[in-house]
Amino acid sequence: MHQDYFYIRPEDVSENRLEFRTEESRHLILVCRKRTGDVVFAVDGRGNAYEARLVKTNRTRVVAEVLRIHERLGESNVELTLAQGVLKGSRFDWLVEKAVEVGVTKIIPVRTQHSASGAVSGNRIPRLERIALAAMKQSGRSVLPDIVPVQAFDRLLETSADYDLKFIAEPGREQLQVSPEALSDTAPCRRIRILCLVGPEGGFEPSELEKALHQGFHPVSLGPTRLRSETAGIALSFLVISRYGGK
Amino acid sequence: MHQDYFYIRPEDVSENRLEFRTEESRHLILVCRKRTGDVVFAVDGRGNAYEARLVKTNRTRVVAEVLRIHERLGESNVELTLAQGVLKGSRFDWLVEKAVEVGVTKIIPVRTQHSASGAVSGNRIPRLERIALAAMKQSGRSVLPDIVPVQAFDRLLETSADYDLKFIAEPGREQLQVSPEALSDTAPCRRIRILCLVGPEGGFEPSELEKALHQGFHPVSLGPTRLRSETAGIALSFLVISRYGGK
Repeated sequence: MHQDYFYIRPEDVSENRLEFRTEESRHLILVCRKRTGDVVFAVDGRGNAYEARLVKTNRTRVVAEVLRIHERLGESNVELTLAQGVLKGSRFDWLVEKAVEVGVTKIIPVRTQHSASGAVSGNRIPRLERIALAAMKQSGRSVLPDIVPVQAFDRLLETSADYDLKFIAEPGREQLQVSPEALSDTAPCRRIRILCLVGPEGGFEPSELEKALHQGFHPVSLGPTRLRSETAGIALSFLVISRYGGK
Repeated sequence: MHQDYFYIRPEDVSENRLEFRTEESRHLILVCRKRTGDVVFAVDGRGNAYEARLVKTNRTRVVAEVLRIHERLGESNVELTLAQGVLKGSRFDWLVEKAVEVGVTKIIPVRTQHSASGAVSGNRIPRLERIALAAMKQSGRSVLPDIVPVQAFDRLLETSADYDLKFIAEPGREQLQVSPEALSDTAPCRRIRILCLVGPEGGFEPSELEKALHQGFHPVSLGPTRLRSETAGIALSFLVISRYGGK
């Protein structure tokens, strides 16, 4: 029932031929016990899923011939960027795994007044990328979400005009509640670019919230309970993709 | 901005007086640095939140006098039971934390054909209860979700007639997709009892799914990606509370 997905780097695809790197070859052969003649799914992280037959198999190098290409397999109609206040260690790891699962396409760790300091430094990004890659395969997606270096809050706002829709999770402001139903008001039929902004564990400063509202972010309350930051990030992402991502 | 919540056992409330146990007294005094005269929020896990002034404080025993009682603080209009296929160790721990955050009121680990064996045995429940208690306070809820011992799948179905609505997460069955919008068709205005059933990592057997559908469960697809079991449990719970829990 469960289809295994493998990762093929875009540069390792030529004509109708896939050549897997050592690590993925080992995974194919030693863990998943694939053999010459078996048909597998390989995703390139850029929206292409190759249905391919293995033609050469050894433990360090597997070659496959492409039978069919499926475009944007397992992807919704939303290009969703999740900008999330930096969290401590494992909570950010977890956020990345779950954000990939629910369909986020880009993750921006954001430095705000209350964000955890020092986390998600440059040398943590390779680890997060590995988590994202595993989650992409696990969740049957074909797009590998981009994890970018930490951005300052103000810088994020400056670049937020690029999005069709922007939401900010704001649990404390009942008077600003946008019910989930109201989110669909402007739903277009085509793929749209959406930015979700979620504060760190300590929330946003009122001045940060005001700036975001001024830039056209819609505040969204996520229900009667106080969610932890990473839970809010996943819940908002899931809600947005449920509403706007239908094919 | 962030209000701390403390736990008071229902049996330690008498008239207008709260008497905290040692552990919570230490937390009040040593961690949160509360002093005589301070006003705190204490929740009893049964839907009562007490706004109370501390009248006696030492490190092992804090007594408070009740100023106001808030009923069902931080609770939605849904009584949501999450029945989840048993998962391995830390994934079930995580599930409990997040399920409490999003507002689940009861968690039933379910033994299915593909569930992890041995996990959530009787002696793991106290640990899960501690996680649930911390998450209740963290998320500003006043109801402590009940975590019950593992139930067999068939036994769960036998008792499922007690619920007003029943959903089963079923990612593989596109033809059975119920769009999130369709979930609201039968939404009543009052608190309702909803059961969400989510398979373990390996999913349900077709025969299990058939039995559930026969018992009136509505199958729900959770979008284009394959979610891990615990992510599906949280996503479905969040979706259901977003739809039905509005006050």
